[in-house]
Amino acid sequence: MTLPISFADVQSAARQIAGVANRTPVVTSRTANQVAGCHLFFKCENLQRVGAFKFRGAYNALSRLSAQEKARGVVTHSSGNHAQGVALAAQLLGIKATIVMPTDAPASKLAATRGYGADVVLYDRQTRSREEISAQLAAERGLTFVHPYDHPHIMAGQGTAALELFEDVPGLDVLVAPVGGGGLLSGCATAARALNPAVRVFGVETESSNDWWQSFKTGERVKIPPPNTIADGMRTQQPGELTFPVVRQLVEQIVLVSDAQVVEALKFLLLRLKILAEPTGAVAPAAVLNRLIDIPPDARVGVIISGGNVDPGLLAELLN
Amino acid sequence: MTLPISFADVQSAARQIAGVANRTPVVTSRTANQVAGCHLFFKCENLQRVGAFKFRGAYNALSRLSAQEKARGVVTHSSGNHAQGVALAAQLLGIKATIVMPTDAPASKLAATRGYGADVVLYDRQTRSREEISAQLAAERGLTFVHPYDHPHIMAGQGTAALELFEDVPGLDVLVAPVGGGGLLSGCATAARALNPAVRVFGVETESSNDWWQSFKTGERVKIPPPNTIADGMRTQQPGELTFPVVRQLVEQIVLVSDAQVVEALKFLLLRLKILAEPTGAVAPAAVLNRLIDIPPDARVGVIISGGNVDPGLLAELLN
Repeated sequence: MTLPISFADVQSAARQIAGVANRTPVVTSRTANQVAGCHLFFKCENLQRVGAFKFRGAYNALSRLSAQEKARGVVTHSSGNHAQGVALAAQLLGIKATIVMPTDAPASKLAATRGYGADVVLYDRQTRSREEISAQLAAERGLTFVHPYDHPHIMAGQGTAALELFEDVPGLDVLVAPVGGGGLLSGCATAARALNPAVRVFGVETESSNDWWQSFKTGERVKIPPPNTIADGMRTQQPGELTFPVVRQLVEQIVLVSDAQVVEALKFLLLRLKILAEPTGAVAPAAVLNRLIDIPPDARVGVIISGGNVDPGLLAELLN
Repeated sequence: MTLPISFADVQSAARQIAGVANRTPVVTSRTANQVAGCHLFFKCENLQRVGAFKFRGAYNALSRLSAQEKARGVVTHSSGNHAQGVALAAQLLGIKATIVMPTDAPASKLAATRGYGADVVLYDRQTRSREEISAQLAAERGLTFVHPYDHPHIMAGQGTAALELFEDVPGLDVLVAPVGGGGLLSGCATAARALNPAVRVFGVETESSNDWWQSFKTGERVKIPPPNTIADGMRTQQPGELTFPVVRQLVEQIVLVSDAQVVEALKFLLLRLKILAEPTGAVAPAAVLNRLIDIPPDARVGVIISGGNVDPGLLAELLN
């Protein structure tokens, strides 16, 4: 089967975002290596513009729109970071952005999205479908819909995180990334496997948002009820139509972590490595710090910290 | 007057700690540049081993002891980070370390110091002198006293932070560093002025711990009562005998920030740059983020984040 994106698409995305997106640093820690029992290389997408990897895909997608599409504007839905990514990319490219966001999205993400000049349309996550609202706005206002993950330019854009990581850290044996809609994981797996066909790639999600884990078991895209997890970037209910085949072909296993493990990982990253991850950003670190993946002690393991946008009030709560 | 350290001492210290201390990253942020009105380059000593620059000087000093001195052990006093620096350096070099710490030192710093295998001797900061206790222990037990700042090997070791910063970021016009005892500022000013004689160097302390500011006014080492400031690394009462002449000759001005400005800077670094500084580590950033130094908009400014060790309980309180 031909997959919806190729390594060439990721390389093209890297050229498209060069000089606009941050080339984020890779952080190491002796303490983290001791805890995990292998050599960890944290790719810090929490230090990306808008505080998450989402800017990569958003800028790649928006910058490739036609002049006409740019003039009409874009619409998308997001629990937060994709919203900010699209909002900033739109601002930089002079495009009007409309963002459909749940009423329970973190206040910091709502404020930041509005701060980049986007129009925010709120909806109740328990009663209404964001897909329908977005489709309606697109139809009524002639806007181009920018899917948060099920879109080749988005997937290829997110894959540039792994491309940079593999360029900066030679000889990686393993890649561990969080999976919500699958944009990041599909893009990163595409880049990683192209650069090292022997690399083992793992996706991580939380126990209550286990749609990928169930879908890997059954081989079909299982849809779950709206999950209640602290990792708000993982509240998607079903693997993407485009992302699922890529992940299924290139990823070895979906690993589950508990919300408690995520919080512990967040605190470890903050208090020991001195870097702030949001709960979703601590999901992949939680898997390796708890040794949930069978990794030999001499292995070199790339771990993606996907974002760092967390409400100060929630952070204070987690620290108490 | 001949100063107690030269640039050659800093270069020698750099060779001594190479491969043992972290070469810490330099972080930049478009948002921070907008707030400060110039180009900022944050040297992240919060990502140093033990979470602060203090490891540099401690390892430089301890590794230069004679075999006999190493066999007898070392003693020092510290509100926290120097304690951890000496404790880890001693552990790595197989030296027994005794650390005199105030009873009100942050619990995380006490725990970390003990975690590196050091003996901790507690004292009451309001009623007893740590200098006397340390001297007594040194005499009774034959230990070598390792001064937290007034020691050429310590000063030269801390200066390697600026040496790295100036090597990694070409064309810096300004250097801003916090000043407690003066070890960091004296060493960094020595390196910075040697590498660029035209560089302007500023020291920053909090308003209530203004011993350096007063001493710059009078030209003498003014002693103040034990200061009450959130920046616990600045609770020294008087500039050092060795550090003062270096700072006075090489540093343009001592800048004062309020505790409130320090807390705001800490929160800005955490929530926007996603990096955790302790209050003392946010003192130099506070000066530039509040535009307290007259810096032209095209200037390239190195700013030292000196450490990141903060109790989770205090951090939670500051975030609420």
